[in-house]
Amino acid sequence: MVNKAKHFSLQNIEQMEQRYRAHFVNSLSGFKSANLIGTVDAKGRTNLSIVSSVFHLGSSPALVGFINRPRVGGDSQVERHTLENIIENGCYTINHVAASFYQQAHQTSARYSRNTSEFDATGLTEEYVTDIKAPFVKESRLKYSVELVEHQTLLNNTELVIGQIQHVIVDETAVKNDGLIDLSVLDTVAVSGLDCYHQSEKLVRLSYAKPDKAPTIIED
Amino acid sequence: MVNKAKHFSLQNIEQMEQRYRAHFVNSLSGFKSANLIGTVDAKGRTNLSIVSSVFHLGSSPALVGFINRPRVGGDSQVERHTLENIIENGCYTINHVAASFYQQAHQTSARYSRNTSEFDATGLTEEYVTDIKAPFVKESRLKYSVELVEHQTLLNNTELVIGQIQHVIVDETAVKNDGLIDLSVLDTVAVSGLDCYHQSEKLVRLSYAKPDKAPTIIED
Repeated sequence: MVNKAKHFSLQNIEQMEQRYRAHFVNSLSGFKSANLIGTVDAKGRTNLSIVSSVFHLGSSPALVGFINRPRVGGDSQVERHTLENIIENGCYTINHVAASFYQQAHQTSARYSRNTSEFDATGLTEEYVTDIKAPFVKESRLKYSVELVEHQTLLNNTELVIGQIQHVIVDETAVKNDGLIDLSVLDTVAVSGLDCYHQSEKLVRLSYAKPDKAPTIIED
Repeated sequence: MVNKAKHFSLQNIEQMEQRYRAHFVNSLSGFKSANLIGTVDAKGRTNLSIVSSVFHLGSSPALVGFINRPRVGGDSQVERHTLENIIENGCYTINHVAASFYQQAHQTSARYSRNTSEFDATGLTEEYVTDIKAPFVKESRLKYSVELVEHQTLLNNTELVIGQIQHVIVDETAVKNDGLIDLSVLDTVAVSGLDCYHQSEKLVRLSYAKPDKAPTIIED
């Protein structure tokens, strides 16, 4: 069966009602990672924020980026506690969201005041490891601390934040012999659009592609 | 049951064997989108490349970014046909990878010469729509054309490419009443690590989070 394809032009997109357009355009990039970023300010006030824009940047050195929403909106300043804390402290944690606590993770996106920790508000548990200066999420089974390397403002006032991975804490059972971490074992969820959560079912792993042969399935 | 958590320090990561580290660090960001980028050079030679780094940047204007791997490696230059074509042409397409053709999509990552089109090599079908100057993937049920806005080199020589979404072509059945595009309906796949493909099972949609109440499930 061939489904009917609909064509939306630039003009159609620009004329969409604002919330409709946000849902629509946020769906276009495909599946997004679901992570909680844990931070703390100089007064010791912790913050936790769900972010769907964390992306891999390089493995040597191990770099990870994410996009922070604009701090300026029209004429006004918007408080962005996560980014402010990262700049102040230089250190943050990234924690995979699993199916067992994604509703609490989603709730961290509510606009809490600076004095309210999303850990307290959502019931997720702060965890401190060795001398790492930012809080982890105890419930998360794959998490790491990151040191800020640079941040810059992009053309639409979003901010690109790049950090180097320092300490990784992961369930031993999920790490495969060749280094891959099996996200299905960890029940890590994915996000699409603004509010849609997905569990994954592993298809297969495919061999490194070479021009002269078809990919084969890696057994593991 | 509590699984045993393993702690990897920065030193542990740096000492990993190169391929092991690539698998490990590529797993840390979580699920990644699976997209095929379609381009064409000034001589009309088409190119198709699987990319797992496409990310949402903004909905008004509708902007999308991706990370291109370094064009310099040690002392040598590496050919990156996709990025070269994008800069030459100014226009490219992004096509969601579905479960029905992810193995062909993966095969586009093999190092083909500039004279070999990955469309021909993998059996995926070029499709041209109105006067859009870049090829779509006919098999893809959610795809859009993008106009290059800017690109810049980041600190590890990866390149950030930002474009504006121009035309969206999507199966009508997947677009919900509020604008969300249901990726489960489209069988869009996700990637983890370097080579692991996943199908998704939708959990739920959650309401816009507010501080004073728990999220509710959106029925649709």
